[in-house]
Amino acid sequence: MDKEKEFVNIIKNIVDPNYEAVGWEIGIGDDAAIVKGDVEGGPLAICSDAIVEDVHFNIDHYSFRNIGWKSIAINVSDIISMGAMPKYFTVSIGLNREFRIEDFEELITGIKECSDEFNAIIAGGDIVRSEKLFISVSAVGFFDWKNRKRGMTRNDALPGDKIGVSGFLGDSLGGFLSLQKNKNEDLQLISKHLKPYPNLSLARRLFSNNINCCTDISDGLNAELINICESSNVSISIEVENMPISYELKNAFPNNYFDMAINGGEDFELLFTFNDLPKDMLDQITVIGEIKEIGSNQITYNLRGNKYSPNLKQWRHFE
Amino acid sequence: MDKEKEFVNIIKNIVDPNYEAVGWEIGIGDDAAIVKGDVEGGPLAICSDAIVEDVHFNIDHYSFRNIGWKSIAINVSDIISMGAMPKYFTVSIGLNREFRIEDFEELITGIKECSDEFNAIIAGGDIVRSEKLFISVSAVGFFDWKNRKRGMTRNDALPGDKIGVSGFLGDSLGGFLSLQKNKNEDLQLISKHLKPYPNLSLARRLFSNNINCCTDISDGLNAELINICESSNVSISIEVENMPISYELKNAFPNNYFDMAINGGEDFELLFTFNDLPKDMLDQITVIGEIKEIGSNQITYNLRGNKYSPNLKQWRHFE
Repeated sequence: MDKEKEFVNIIKNIVDPNYEAVGWEIGIGDDAAIVKGDVEGGPLAICSDAIVEDVHFNIDHYSFRNIGWKSIAINVSDIISMGAMPKYFTVSIGLNREFRIEDFEELITGIKECSDEFNAIIAGGDIVRSEKLFISVSAVGFFDWKNRKRGMTRNDALPGDKIGVSGFLGDSLGGFLSLQKNKNEDLQLISKHLKPYPNLSLARRLFSNNINCCTDISDGLNAELINICESSNVSISIEVENMPISYELKNAFPNNYFDMAINGGEDFELLFTFNDLPKDMLDQITVIGEIKEIGSNQITYNLRGNKYSPNLKQWRHFE
Repeated sequence: MDKEKEFVNIIKNIVDPNYEAVGWEIGIGDDAAIVKGDVEGGPLAICSDAIVEDVHFNIDHYSFRNIGWKSIAINVSDIISMGAMPKYFTVSIGLNREFRIEDFEELITGIKECSDEFNAIIAGGDIVRSEKLFISVSAVGFFDWKNRKRGMTRNDALPGDKIGVSGFLGDSLGGFLSLQKNKNEDLQLISKHLKPYPNLSLARRLFSNNINCCTDISDGLNAELINICESSNVSISIEVENMPISYELKNAFPNNYFDMAINGGEDFELLFTFNDLPKDMLDQITVIGEIKEIGSNQITYNLRGNKYSPNLKQWRHFE
């Protein structure tokens, strides 16, 4: 077991030893938690996600405005993938004594721009001293809860469901690698990496169309498929040639694009399962596979009738 | 203007240029924000506060259990000083590759113990890599909002109000200094520093007794008095001999205890103004001064009929 999983298990065991999801409530382990509101209010979605200098970004390749944007966008992505709308953010910023006023203005401008873009509000936060810059954001979202009485989780994939994704896969990893090589012409890929744009409108439509199983792709398609397999206790079959891969990714990485789409993190696209969707929604998504039998929790990748074995190198921070 | 204030002003200007508190809503600048709930629910209090290794704690003097406790307690303190009850926490933890499993268990145990103590729930969070340990917590609290229709803020001190505090002042700074000198016999002081215990029951009683102006003492009495002066546009007069100072602090720091009580941060006691309170509540608090005229925003310290000039050295991280 890798160390990050061990840490997460410790949290689950100590924080919530007898946790069982009841009704609306979802505890630790999904993109966000769904918790009871006050006596009269509907449920809330809450989550937090931090980014750290030289781990999630570096200041050579990122502008401070991009860093600010991304710190909010990753939390928007977690909230919308549960079916909620982000409403309030708190932001804790760690920075060192030399941090420049004009860089701070850019950082806060990026935070504000992303928050505005998704109609949410920066409600509070704090500034602390830290050698390396970090931005830790938490988000509170609300559900249009008269519409339906549950959120979208990773638990609810059913055999026979089709597997859908939004957008393109692997572009963010492509952008990251291009930046590292200073190949600054791959602008679409780089933009996807520096300024991810969570698909709020699709998430809302999935929610109102009674989709139950949905997650965002933050750690890479394969990692998110594992989450769905384990949470829903199913197996999954993926058609590699059906994966949505951008022309730009194929062009920039002609020998690797399948594996990049399978492993690449930080696409912040939506991954969901469904039985039926309106025709106009089917035009906005790509069907990449199917949920198979209960129990064995296997992921199979197929390419032109044969089994395909991707070079699985997960996108994670503890290695 | 010091750099931290400049950063906070940038946030206020960019995030919320036209902010005006309307009804229940309180924006950036108080202990926590008070925001609208969903359509039917009451308002929420939300806040976030982070602690960073070698800035807010070091691992020579703090056990990981204490670090976990304190990361939650400082957020409890912010929520209760608005009149709300903490209900949900999210926790983002930054740690390095060498971080030990058993230390992580202790950290999470401290987090869980403090959350349990105040009847709240750890709803989510994430783990990221960071050279220095940090714990960034955000809290969501609810109000007993049928009781009254506003929270407690720093804005509402009125001339003629008495100024009350809970507990003892300066003990946490005393504990911090004792730890630094390895004077480990000052247990009450050290315990106040390592394991602060926000006074939830008093905060609830202040709220239900219609106290409007309240804050927690996190940055030291003087800094919090400045906040009240500026937010409420009043002046303040403090009777130094009336300040609640523990026997232990007087004993350990016989030449400095007044200034330590005035400057010492992280006491996490409540500071509030009031016109009248029930007799049994007066027995639980100490009256240290009075709100004076509108406008000049001066703080005067008096000792035995004379003006007292404390050696003001603020408890802050950017110096």
